[in-house]
Amino acid sequence: MNVEGRRMRTIWPVGDGGTVEIIDQTRLPHELAIVGLVTLDDAATAIWTMQVRGAPLIGVTAAYGVALGMAEDPSDHGLDRTIAILAATRPTAVNLRWALAEMERRLRDLPPSGRFKAALAFAGEIAEADVASSRAIGEHGAPLIVAAWQREAGDRPVEVLTHCNAGWLAAVDWGTALAPIYRAHDEGIPIHVWVDETRPRNQGAGLTAWELGQHGVAHTVIVDNAGGHLMRQGLVDLCIVGSDRTTAAGDVANKIGTYLKALAARDNDVPFYVALPSSTIDWEIEDGAAIPIERRDPREVTHIEGWTDSGERIAVRITPQHSPAENYAFDVTPARLVTALITERGICPASRDGLLKLFPERRLTGR
Amino acid sequence: MNVEGRRMRTIWPVGDGGTVEIIDQTRLPHELAIVGLVTLDDAATAIWTMQVRGAPLIGVTAAYGVALGMAEDPSDHGLDRTIAILAATRPTAVNLRWALAEMERRLRDLPPSGRFKAALAFAGEIAEADVASSRAIGEHGAPLIVAAWQREAGDRPVEVLTHCNAGWLAAVDWGTALAPIYRAHDEGIPIHVWVDETRPRNQGAGLTAWELGQHGVAHTVIVDNAGGHLMRQGLVDLCIVGSDRTTAAGDVANKIGTYLKALAARDNDVPFYVALPSSTIDWEIEDGAAIPIERRDPREVTHIEGWTDSGERIAVRITPQHSPAENYAFDVTPARLVTALITERGICPASRDGLLKLFPERRLTGR
Repeated sequence: MNVEGRRMRTIWPVGDGGTVEIIDQTRLPHELAIVGLVTLDDAATAIWTMQVRGAPLIGVTAAYGVALGMAEDPSDHGLDRTIAILAATRPTAVNLRWALAEMERRLRDLPPSGRFKAALAFAGEIAEADVASSRAIGEHGAPLIVAAWQREAGDRPVEVLTHCNAGWLAAVDWGTALAPIYRAHDEGIPIHVWVDETRPRNQGAGLTAWELGQHGVAHTVIVDNAGGHLMRQGLVDLCIVGSDRTTAAGDVANKIGTYLKALAARDNDVPFYVALPSSTIDWEIEDGAAIPIERRDPREVTHIEGWTDSGERIAVRITPQHSPAENYAFDVTPARLVTALITERGICPASRDGLLKLFPERRLTGR
Repeated sequence: MNVEGRRMRTIWPVGDGGTVEIIDQTRLPHELAIVGLVTLDDAATAIWTMQVRGAPLIGVTAAYGVALGMAEDPSDHGLDRTIAILAATRPTAVNLRWALAEMERRLRDLPPSGRFKAALAFAGEIAEADVASSRAIGEHGAPLIVAAWQREAGDRPVEVLTHCNAGWLAAVDWGTALAPIYRAHDEGIPIHVWVDETRPRNQGAGLTAWELGQHGVAHTVIVDNAGGHLMRQGLVDLCIVGSDRTTAAGDVANKIGTYLKALAARDNDVPFYVALPSSTIDWEIEDGAAIPIERRDPREVTHIEGWTDSGERIAVRITPQHSPAENYAFDVTPARLVTALITERGICPASRDGLLKLFPERRLTGR
């Protein structure tokens, strides 16, 4: 989407593909820094340190990471090692596993000498497929926003609440939860987005606010505690969030706190939509309780990173020196609280039947 | 309660009462600073800037503020001005209005020459009544924790979740939500508290964690987003929060985000208790929607204050320069989500009938 007026993506290969460039998302919103990934370790570190994050982008970065790994060692052993290192970076997003399995499947039977070039091409295909998928999610989801605007808003903008960042920064372009918002905005629908700051890493305050602002979409940052009050006051017409992993029965693992917003939406009859590419669906799991929930460094809770008036990025401690902290990165929103899923193939109920109607090939394989 | 091993309160007059000392809570958890309030403006500023906060302590500070105002100008005009200035500091906590009305009622018919000394004595009575009230809340509430421990915990500590700070720092001593926790802890019940950090001002991370740590109560700080996940995982046996204003029908205005935790508690069959002194009850309001909700400076959302490694306290910006923010300080949890109210007279259902059984004198007055 637009950054300072020009179109941008989150990841792209340069030259002969020996370098893959990314936006370093840990330096947003205060600095737009482009970083080159040259080695397999660069790619793994970028995922683990969240220079790139968001389920779709994690998958695409892992695919390019496989290409970088093949440039280093295209042997079978190199392929095994590459897959293992990248698979260990983050546990919750299923796109990572999906992209790695796809890359391995395509590369395994090729001669080592051809693997780097092929991997680069396959990663590019996965990236393009992600853009197409995000664009389609926007096309399918925008009418929900238009309908809410016609039904609820009248003379005022339609009010959408989102949690974390499931915008183009979480994908390659367009995003998932924000794709319908960009689409509706580009079509001229007056729209205002309540942006949950999304502690502990503040992807809402830092990334969603930044990308909405750059694209010209009206928005207001709120603390994660505020959404329930807004809904009780009638200030939210619909919620749209992304997903890090969706089970075959429609349970949704997404950024910690999503479940609380889904409860508030249900309590106030506010539609709660989850937008996701099908690469985020884990067809092997029915119950969200089976999804592994990443626990991250407690320092993300005890300290907050921000920028001083002089533009210096520093971390400040907000807790007493000896108070421990716990840092769960995701929670699971049960399908019963999800109004509908927005996928690249259309909208469906958050249920096994709903998903299988959109993805009938999964019925045939029994998966 | 205990600070570095010695017993402490949040507010106390010194010498002839011309100075009232407080703990400056904006400097916790990293510095225990005692500040002297000498003028009416000192007292109003302490409330507005949240050097003191928490509904009961706001009321007691306002009472002492009236005494400081009477030292400056004990005339009728001075009394009017004092009440007006203090009343304008914070809108949501009803204790402020209650304490000011009480002070005015007692002072109005006294000759100006006697007002300062009388005001000081009355403020002291209000402070002592608050301590007695908090202690009684602890005595009534502790058996709920003991029961949950016997029912749910077995070999592990009983797990309590709280939001914001309703500990002794929010009152004069003991606190409201934390009073039953201190009581149970002092009785030897193994207890662990999940402390919501409570954005935007982080009273949980800064104050609740500090006071629990000082008193030796095991606790873990979590982001506000995490409580729902913990409850789904069975890691919370009960929730206890405070109240800034409780309606005659049992609706509870408390720190923003309380409502979301109440929804999660209901969804997971976790008891959700609200602890409050009766000074927090607004007998004139039935419906929580009638409670005025304070909106504070958006800078509390866009910036976070913390401490650098070298002990310097600074604010860092976490949002893009041009993204607006909105800052609602409280939300309303409807009575239907509250398992019971814990008051200084005992425990009751969050309903008009429940409250009137504990406070029958309110039935007689029709209020």
